[in-house]
Amino acid sequence: MEKINLKEKLSKFSDHWSPKVIAEMNDYQFKLVKIKGDFVWHNHEDTDEVFIVIEGNMKIEFENETVELNEGDMYVVPKGIQHKPSAENECKIMLVEPRGVVNTGNTQGDLTASNDVWI
Amino acid sequence: MEKINLKEKLSKFSDHWSPKVIAEMNDYQFKLVKIKGDFVWHNHEDTDEVFIVIEGNMKIEFENETVELNEGDMYVVPKGIQHKPSAENECKIMLVEPRGVVNTGNTQGDLTASNDVWI
Repeated sequence: MEKINLKEKLSKFSDHWSPKVIAEMNDYQFKLVKIKGDFVWHNHEDTDEVFIVIEGNMKIEFENETVELNEGDMYVVPKGIQHKPSAENECKIMLVEPRGVVNTGNTQGDLTASNDVWI
Repeated sequence: MEKINLKEKLSKFSDHWSPKVIAEMNDYQFKLVKIKGDFVWHNHEDTDEVFIVIEGNMKIEFENETVELNEGDMYVVPKGIQHKPSAENECKIMLVEPRGVVNTGNTQGDLTASNDVWI
């Protein structure tokens, strides 16, 4: 087991909305992703999802409110809740969720990314 | 659900080796803890454990090596593996592990902290 440096891992890719796995604990994965622009409305029927902002700022839109997250902020999106992440400028985040979760949840489409891409 | 700011939460306590829960996703908890000095050798028989260094630096001693972690470093201690965290100066870290994990694992003692203390 090697230590993992978040910024070093972030320097290894530049695409948007395409999560990269950096670690697993039990059956959970820690993923880094760079985001810019609007994602799609979706939900994850079977799991909560954790967002942690490493650098930049982003929004998560819900049906009745919009949450703004800045560096060092964390948010737990409860399972089954419709949400739409977005970022005006590039934002670097860490996601924590069970292995096998699809990024677009119940909304397959152009932004659906491959799973289990490690960096 | 409110957003959680890691530094703001860290400003709310000052004791060492006493993890505070800041969030739950499914049956997993995110905990902040300030550490200084030596912890005890222990292992967690049933789960991996994630360390993420928010500020400062720390070491995790294993039977055959010692890993040094600095700000932005992350480490997954595999389940069942004996380890001893330590920090020369105060270090602020986030732990991720299933609800119910005891900080001293199989080594109950003076440093065993109460579980489910939220801040």
